[in-house]
Amino acid sequence: MFYIIGLGLSDEQDVTLRGLNAIKGAARVYLEAYTSILMIDKERLEAFYEKPIILADRDMVETQSDEILAGAKTEDVALLVVGDPFGATTHTDIILRARKLSIPTRVIHNASIMNAAGACGLQLYNFGQTVSLVFFTETWRPDSFYDRIKENWTLGTHTLVLLDIKVKEQSEENLARGRKIFEPPRYMTIPTAVSQLISTEEERGEGVLSPSTTLAIALSRVGGGVDHERIVAGTLQELLDAPPEMFGSPLHSLVLVGKRVHPLEVEYAGAYAINVDSWRRVATEVYGCVLDEA
Amino acid sequence: MFYIIGLGLSDEQDVTLRGLNAIKGAARVYLEAYTSILMIDKERLEAFYEKPIILADRDMVETQSDEILAGAKTEDVALLVVGDPFGATTHTDIILRARKLSIPTRVIHNASIMNAAGACGLQLYNFGQTVSLVFFTETWRPDSFYDRIKENWTLGTHTLVLLDIKVKEQSEENLARGRKIFEPPRYMTIPTAVSQLISTEEERGEGVLSPSTTLAIALSRVGGGVDHERIVAGTLQELLDAPPEMFGSPLHSLVLVGKRVHPLEVEYAGAYAINVDSWRRVATEVYGCVLDEA
Repeated sequence: MFYIIGLGLSDEQDVTLRGLNAIKGAARVYLEAYTSILMIDKERLEAFYEKPIILADRDMVETQSDEILAGAKTEDVALLVVGDPFGATTHTDIILRARKLSIPTRVIHNASIMNAAGACGLQLYNFGQTVSLVFFTETWRPDSFYDRIKENWTLGTHTLVLLDIKVKEQSEENLARGRKIFEPPRYMTIPTAVSQLISTEEERGEGVLSPSTTLAIALSRVGGGVDHERIVAGTLQELLDAPPEMFGSPLHSLVLVGKRVHPLEVEYAGAYAINVDSWRRVATEVYGCVLDEA
Repeated sequence: MFYIIGLGLSDEQDVTLRGLNAIKGAARVYLEAYTSILMIDKERLEAFYEKPIILADRDMVETQSDEILAGAKTEDVALLVVGDPFGATTHTDIILRARKLSIPTRVIHNASIMNAAGACGLQLYNFGQTVSLVFFTETWRPDSFYDRIKENWTLGTHTLVLLDIKVKEQSEENLARGRKIFEPPRYMTIPTAVSQLISTEEERGEGVLSPSTTLAIALSRVGGGVDHERIVAGTLQELLDAPPEMFGSPLHSLVLVGKRVHPLEVEYAGAYAINVDSWRRVATEVYGCVLDEA
């Protein structure tokens, strides 16, 4: 059996009993480690499971999956993924490959940022399409996310913005010289994300985003509990001006508030506002929310 | 501490280690049992946790939450919810109430249908707003879901349709006479959902849904593994004509495929098609997908 097991969002305690049971029984255990991260390292997981873990990079999962699937007809193999197997990154490729090889597959679900984002107090019902924001470079500034945000904005739905992760990337020089030397991992933070959003708005100029009147909610280490999780709400400008330590270490995600926001959503998220007065003022004057007196 | 703990989708094995630990340490444990169900009963959960569980109906969670929160400043109280605390039903009301009472709260996330729906092979990125479909009666046929589906359809995004659950409902007669006698629980099935969608299209006539050319995917008991989970793909008419036992017992959900569907999504879900030829034909001719030869 090939198991593909969601680990949830935070640490080794977020696995489900069903997932842990499958890990304990597996002959080999792989950890997909290029699209998301837990807040702990591989060694802590190995100590907890009492068995070795093989790190699987993008190449291995996407193009050399036969190595992972080897023997899975007769013994159990587990691929661990942060979040849910069908979350922000789906793993349909490797499941399709397992199907072709007639290997039985079992998916063990868990929380992913796609549903845990509800922790900000906005209803998941009212989210439109999810977008991804990649690190801009001097020569590469893909902005198709702007069209998706515009579509959501026009309907009035919220947008979950997932922020880029660069793991096992090579510098242009090392790539050109064929040197397998990798850069340290990079995780996009809220200030970078917000500044990219604002600069894209400046270039496109279609009036979708505004530093002073677009409300947004920054999510850091969702599911990490009081010691780790941070939720910060404000206008884009307020998030940009906030001290970076307010968001802390990765992973970060961003929610853009849609026009159809409900007063209860505004009230709930207001507890996380940098400036609750401006939060309520923009919600009332720009979003048209009718709020009770504070 | 007030814990609000997602149980996941299937049975007692889907709780996370963090969740189980909090349940074991709680002075009182409530189970929210009106918006979703596990595939097992309360007694099995009590035996598993080795402690009693108090069933919390809608009234208790929404309007009498002080009873649940009593004492939570000095001891641990746990409210268990099927899926995730911020999933299809959010529990922001009771968290707001806990905040007002200065009771510290911890949310323990888990899978919900809002992310596990990715099991059908459609990318969660490409879903628009989620809609709920309630049981129509002779005099009550609320159809605002149709507007949301139309918005998603116009953009080309997929739609997750959550189906009604009636738990602890009174008949009109019993309600009028003030008799606390409750009807047996009812769960909307795929055939009922599809027939309500088609009849709404007939009334509204805006060309959003078509029995023969709208592709959809029925999800039953997602997360239940090979013995329980069923995924069935087809046109609305094919789902309507399928024998009801094809979908089995509740809970059921439905995904409507959007126009922007990717060929890989079509290929993945094609493995669940009632008729793979018509599935591929509609995807090609109506949705404009360019598929490889089968």
